Amino acid sequence: MEFSSKLLENAVNEMSQLPGIGKRTALRLVLHLLRQPESQTFQLADALSKVRKEINFCKSCHNISDNILCEICENPNRNTELICVVEDIRDVMAVENTSSFKGLYHVLGGKISPMDGIGPQDLNISTLVEKVKAGKVKELIFAMSPTMEGDTTNFYIFRQLQGYNVTTSTIARGVAAGNELEYTDEVTLGRSIIDRVPFEASLKS
Amino acid sequence: MEFSSKLLENAVNEMSQLPGIGKRTALRLVLHLLRQPESQTFQLADALSKVRKEINFCKSCHNISDNILCEICENPNRNTELICVVEDIRDVMAVENTSSFKGLYHVLGGKISPMDGIGPQDLNISTLVEKVKAGKVKELIFAMSPTMEGDTTNFYIFRQLQGYNVTTSTIARGVAAGNELEYTDEVTLGRSIIDRVPFEASLKS
Repeated sequence: MEFSSKLLENAVNEMSQLPGIGKRTALRLVLHLLRQPESQTFQLADALSKVRKEINFCKSCHNISDNILCEICENPNRNTELICVVEDIRDVMAVENTSSFKGLYHVLGGKISPMDGIGPQDLNISTLVEKVKAGKVKELIFAMSPTMEGDTTNFYIFRQLQGYNVTTSTIARGVAAGNELEYTDEVTLGRSIIDRVPFEASLKS
Repeated sequence: MEFSSKLLENAVNEMSQLPGIGKRTALRLVLHLLRQPESQTFQLADALSKVRKEINFCKSCHNISDNILCEICENPNRNTELICVVEDIRDVMAVENTSSFKGLYHVLGGKISPMDGIGPQDLNISTLVEKVKAGKVKELIFAMSPTMEGDTTNFYIFRQLQGYNVTTSTIARGVAAGNELEYTDEVTLGRSIIDRVPFEASLKS
């Protein structure tokens, strides 16, 4: 792509570093900004710089936070004996949106993935083990993605916790609400039969 | 979406103002930046602010340029009597990429579109008419998108130039290189038969 302006070229190059944004899309976005009032670009640039410079991660659960502890960890109404282990802060948001969980979280920051060069030491696993060792956690809920890497990570943590008095569970796998049975893959459908729940219990939610 | 950090929320909100970028994508992009070295975010923010603050449009053709006149208008090897009229600077890039055009450009900055509230006065039409009035232009090539708005814009400019000694042409419409005839729409195919070119001429390119 030949640019008539070095400034434009530079902006497009930087923009196209973002995942999923190629040169053409980057050009479209930058040209859009050029057509909008200056303030929009400055606010965007400022917000990005600021979040990168001042961002904090909660000392306890590693969630993104503006303070030393995040709002969830600081909330006295949450059950501190129940910890939901998630991969990413987006998963915290997803679980929070369900309003079904009143415990705390622990954000691992990824999952064990040898193919991508991510080992246990790259994740926030040691702080989780310490929490358990301190004896204040009664149950860990593994809420990782149901993939090979997710399962590996769950199993690794499970092994680290052998000998400690903590209950571990994983979120249920089964057919999603609104899904047609005939389009559900066989692993999920098989799992949902093995993990069937008493009908009375299913009426509660 | 519930955010655990105001800074993050702010960055995501600003990012999602961009066209085609929703809240979820914006969050993914911002979280990506948070995982990269700080310098990447700062360079992006800086490049965007800079292009917005210092951007210039060529005084003659309205292309984006770092100087008063763009590189194309300043190039002494270009044919100044031939002007290609385009909608957007992206079209300048597209035509330049073909290396088939050695004249100058005139960027209208859009097309007449009453539905979007864009009239002739919102486009760089008067400066084009002045160029023609000055008598230094021999031919105008209309290279607008082949849509209703593009055709309207072409026709409007054509009418403005009645009585001046200038040749006007539009880029050829026809079947695209590599396309299957059976999948070409009937308007395009019909046009390509009416506008057929001598076979010898087609051998040249």
